[in-house]
Amino acid sequence: MDYFFNPKGLAVVGATANPKKGGNIIIANLLKGYTGRIYPVNPRYDTIEGLTCYPSLRAVPDPVDLAVVFVGAEMVPQVIRDCAVRGIPGAMIESAGFAEIGAEGVALQQETARIAGEGGVRLWGPNCMGLVDVKNRRVFSTVTSSIWEQGMIPGKVALIVQSGMLAGAFLIDVMSHGVMGMGKACSIGNKMDVAECDLLEYLLADPDTGVIGLYLESIVDGPRFISLCKAANKPIVVLKGGKSDEGAAAAVSHTASMAGDGAVVSGAFRQAGVVEADDFYQMMDYCRVLEAFDDLPSGLGNRVAIMTYSGGAGIVSADFLVDSQLAMATLSRESLTRLEDVFPSWMAPGNPVDLWPGILLNGTHKAYNETLAVLMADPGVDAVFAHCFVGGFDLEPQLDIMAGLSHSARKPLFCWISGERNAVSRFQRQALDLKIPAFREVKRAVDCLGKLLAYHRRRHQPVDDRIQDIQIQTVPLDRLSGGPRVLDERASKSILKRAGIPVVEEIRVMSPAEADKAADRFGWPVVLKGVVPGAVHKTEAGLVVMNIHGRETLHREFEGMALRVGQRGGMLLQPQLPAGLELIVGLIRDPQFGPCVMCGLGGILTEALNDRAFAVAPLSHGDALALIGRLKSQQLLDGFRGATALDRDALADVLVRLGALGVAYPAVREVDINPFIVVEGRPVAVDAAVML
Amino acid sequence: MDYFFNPKGLAVVGATANPKKGGNIIIANLLKGYTGRIYPVNPRYDTIEGLTCYPSLRAVPDPVDLAVVFVGAEMVPQVIRDCAVRGIPGAMIESAGFAEIGAEGVALQQETARIAGEGGVRLWGPNCMGLVDVKNRRVFSTVTSSIWEQGMIPGKVALIVQSGMLAGAFLIDVMSHGVMGMGKACSIGNKMDVAECDLLEYLLADPDTGVIGLYLESIVDGPRFISLCKAANKPIVVLKGGKSDEGAAAAVSHTASMAGDGAVVSGAFRQAGVVEADDFYQMMDYCRVLEAFDDLPSGLGNRVAIMTYSGGAGIVSADFLVDSQLAMATLSRESLTRLEDVFPSWMAPGNPVDLWPGILLNGTHKAYNETLAVLMADPGVDAVFAHCFVGGFDLEPQLDIMAGLSHSARKPLFCWISGERNAVSRFQRQALDLKIPAFREVKRAVDCLGKLLAYHRRRHQPVDDRIQDIQIQTVPLDRLSGGPRVLDERASKSILKRAGIPVVEEIRVMSPAEADKAADRFGWPVVLKGVVPGAVHKTEAGLVVMNIHGRETLHREFEGMALRVGQRGGMLLQPQLPAGLELIVGLIRDPQFGPCVMCGLGGILTEALNDRAFAVAPLSHGDALALIGRLKSQQLLDGFRGATALDRDALADVLVRLGALGVAYPAVREVDINPFIVVEGRPVAVDAAVML
Repeated sequence: MDYFFNPKGLAVVGATANPKKGGNIIIANLLKGYTGRIYPVNPRYDTIEGLTCYPSLRAVPDPVDLAVVFVGAEMVPQVIRDCAVRGIPGAMIESAGFAEIGAEGVALQQETARIAGEGGVRLWGPNCMGLVDVKNRRVFSTVTSSIWEQGMIPGKVALIVQSGMLAGAFLIDVMSHGVMGMGKACSIGNKMDVAECDLLEYLLADPDTGVIGLYLESIVDGPRFISLCKAANKPIVVLKGGKSDEGAAAAVSHTASMAGDGAVVSGAFRQAGVVEADDFYQMMDYCRVLEAFDDLPSGLGNRVAIMTYSGGAGIVSADFLVDSQLAMATLSRESLTRLEDVFPSWMAPGNPVDLWPGILLNGTHKAYNETLAVLMADPGVDAVFAHCFVGGFDLEPQLDIMAGLSHSARKPLFCWISGERNAVSRFQRQALDLKIPAFREVKRAVDCLGKLLAYHRRRHQPVDDRIQDIQIQTVPLDRLSGGPRVLDERASKSILKRAGIPVVEEIRVMSPAEADKAADRFGWPVVLKGVVPGAVHKTEAGLVVMNIHGRETLHREFEGMALRVGQRGGMLLQPQLPAGLELIVGLIRDPQFGPCVMCGLGGILTEALNDRAFAVAPLSHGDALALIGRLKSQQLLDGFRGATALDRDALADVLVRLGALGVAYPAVREVDINPFIVVEGRPVAVDAAVML
Repeated sequence: MDYFFNPKGLAVVGATANPKKGGNIIIANLLKGYTGRIYPVNPRYDTIEGLTCYPSLRAVPDPVDLAVVFVGAEMVPQVIRDCAVRGIPGAMIESAGFAEIGAEGVALQQETARIAGEGGVRLWGPNCMGLVDVKNRRVFSTVTSSIWEQGMIPGKVALIVQSGMLAGAFLIDVMSHGVMGMGKACSIGNKMDVAECDLLEYLLADPDTGVIGLYLESIVDGPRFISLCKAANKPIVVLKGGKSDEGAAAAVSHTASMAGDGAVVSGAFRQAGVVEADDFYQMMDYCRVLEAFDDLPSGLGNRVAIMTYSGGAGIVSADFLVDSQLAMATLSRESLTRLEDVFPSWMAPGNPVDLWPGILLNGTHKAYNETLAVLMADPGVDAVFAHCFVGGFDLEPQLDIMAGLSHSARKPLFCWISGERNAVSRFQRQALDLKIPAFREVKRAVDCLGKLLAYHRRRHQPVDDRIQDIQIQTVPLDRLSGGPRVLDERASKSILKRAGIPVVEEIRVMSPAEADKAADRFGWPVVLKGVVPGAVHKTEAGLVVMNIHGRETLHREFEGMALRVGQRGGMLLQPQLPAGLELIVGLIRDPQFGPCVMCGLGGILTEALNDRAFAVAPLSHGDALALIGRLKSQQLLDGFRGATALDRDALADVLVRLGALGVAYPAVREVDINPFIVVEGRPVAVDAAVML
């Protein structure tokens, strides 16, 4: 892949002398920073911008290992043929007119891919903005050349962006506002060949890259993506477009890509340690914050001290902490004593520290610097959130000194900055240089601080992701052949039981006498169920009778059930389990990630809470525990109103086994275990359906 | 109150010639805009800034109806005495050193208030920034005079801000960034006399004010505040500091104010039609959006069309709609046909409209203007969200033409703007002049659009807030006398029953024989309860035995219960109600809002959902229905898995009656009805406790 980023010679196919056209902008951008040889290709010119122009790729002298292509879509296949002939390993196709325009474009894209595959040429694009490498000043892109005037602030954040225009817009916006430095920005368009995983792998190994942000509408190879992220030693931030149903509809109509279900995607990301963003600005925020504090020590918690020139802003900041998994720090007695030097005697400092009285007494600089020094030294403080105002009131703090205090304490300092527009902009730029994240909104700052600290806590306490080797060889394979269908409860549970998942006892009963015998064996009360092939909503169909307390009732219910079941099926008798927390556990096959395991709250809580989480199979025991830990209703799991707490290891074991079943048996399309009732802490499958 | 805003003559007590001091800044600010007479007061000067300076207020000639006071706190009482002697009706005390500095300051504040009360002087402040009236160019404030260089953009948004520094910081920030115009900004500080309600009432009647934004840490008179908001014909946006427990702790330590419980405050705001914000920027956003579209027609729904230069941004925008109670518009067949003129033939336009192919074909202006014209004319579109980029790519749209299309269609147009910093700033300023809200973040824009449309839907469908006159005269008053205590279940339910709230039948039983008789009357199964004074957690104390199916069991349980109850109490027999949705309903007394009614989900759902809502009593039937409508679990209320739907009118009637009980009987401190079980759609109180 290095020829895309660091080509020894670069041909621009479709170069032109018309400064309004992309084919000229590419040349202009190259001339401003790229130091290798540039070969414009266009039969209509002898020179372009002082460079010799060649009639075709075949005529270009060596070395060339990247062709940037900006010609009409219909001409692209021939260009790729020429690349193959010349042995050019990479082509970056920035032309549009492929899969995004419908059937005709899809065919053209497929033909191009085929030619490239046969000729050993790797393709980037089409329908993309190519590459902007700020640090190395390489702009292989039609991006408007005003990008050079907007700062080109180098940094260690790399971006992979599926949408072409967005990539360009991002860059101009982010760099001109001076809030973030940038490394390599890759616009990957239709992903005909080179896709997010290829670039992610490259950037994970790239020493110039510290953090990777991705905007994706689809993920070409979900399992590879997840395994790259799991193994990554750099933060990865993803904004996934097309998450809601509305969004997914838009994704389908916009690209040929498949938008995954939001819950599955989020679950997969969490499992892989990916930081998920939900807006463009949030993606940028998370990236710059993770870049600024890339080596926080282990043991850093979530306790925040707030210092503010406005008591009101301190209160509002405190209100936000909990939502971002942060807590108010309790200052030590020593800190409080030291703060007495900064503040008037009538003031009893606390957290938030209201700086105003100290500013009036000792001036802005002393109040800010000494307070921050005290807070950074306090072992009960993990991070400081400082409110700053510039452009009036003599309130401008000495940010360089404050940054020094933060970095030497190895604790994050975040700033909320407001004030006069130009002064704010200067402050933001200074903060960027000093690696102090500054935000114009309190909530945004608190959210980012929470994400940063959570990322590092997780980094220092990684999930055990060793996958156990689980043998599920006893599943009767013959049952899994044949066309798509829903197995009945008995057959479904027999598969689960063989996979090592606890299921409720049951006995098939053919007569009232057999039912009596079974009930005597289980003990009363019992449950009688009708088993009818294809019947999914059993309760609604009258196929479940619970809480049968005696023989008389049992016989009556047996007769009724026999009528409902008819010739189609049989009956099962089960012991009635005591009331307990109801879970739902399941397996689905996601088009992007393959088999995924779900765990959620069941019974009446299903509709009320919609509390569920997904993880991609195979799951390690640690993955499974983390999956359980992502449910919102932790309180219920830990033993509701005196109930025994859920045995998390027992449930995790089930989730691991369900995932292993999905991996081992591709014929198993879907599994639903519902309800999965927790009895004395351990879950038992009371009903289940396996879909083939 | 008009003398605070429109004084005929204004004295500045504590004026000084030192340009670094607040007493000089006030004079300088007055000279830049105030056209009435200005009287500096300070015995140490003859003139200040060319104005005659007077040794004391008593020496100042008429007319003076406002004294702006900026002297040491200890001198303030004498100044107020002078005001009283001179008959000056209003004093705006900007000095600090009162309640915010502890006990000594509290005493000084009380003395000052007493003097003012006796002398008929109204006080604004202390510890505040006073008033900035942008439209009338009146700055009665120590705010840094750079405020004059930052634009002073007049608008119809008025602000009431409790925190002093924040008010000043807001103004500089908002005005210099050019995203919002401003009317009167009032910094009210410690609210010794003039408080939010006084100013709110004034501003509601002020023709220059279109929208009122408030930042409050406490509400002095909750019921008055709510009734002003309910009757308001202008949007009111409130940011309440001190909502979380963390925040509340900060509020107490920062001011002498009492921070209310977040749920109560939010409930009261919703009931009163107040738009609640949770960050400073969000308060400003909601204000400017509500100002921009102040007369949307009735019948406007929530269907949004998105037009974007980037398919990716369209997808992300669509993802946000649902969270903001918005929906994707379905374009009419006619719209789709008309759009064919703008786009290439291969493109099938849909929502989001991806403008890029149209821009390439027809240029930016035609693509934006014609698409917007089609969307605004579509009867299935209620609002348009347009993505704009400036500073490159020839993408700058003609915002004036687009604004015209929006305003003549009377449908909101919102913009997401990104691009080069200075171009973005120019765009934002132009958007402000054209009354088109522009945002730099997609999510923020969508959130604001959702709030705007929801506000207008509510405005056109007001809640019926006529309060019924409910007589609860049969509550035995003698039972409510005596000290604070918890009434037992029987006494509690008897009060509720007399208030017209349905309670489960019950019979006091003294012997097994009486229990049998009662059970026969109710029908089996039955519930046996022990009634012990002061026992709140009855289940845990073994005082509730449910599901008793026969005499034998009943007798056994009776004997056991008799042992547990002992001499302290008695026993009740109740019919066992069928399983149903469990609610919790209650009454509390909030320190700010007085009696408030709560309605929430009960049983296992209590801890899992924390789904509850509050409203201030007395409630109208419409208030009560709206309160029920605010619960998150509407699905459960509407009939879970075939259960009968809740009779909302029946529950609303209970809530109205509970509120009326709270209003009529101040001795009733708290009521808990838990569980309140829904049987065939109608709620029945199964257990209850009244706290006196």
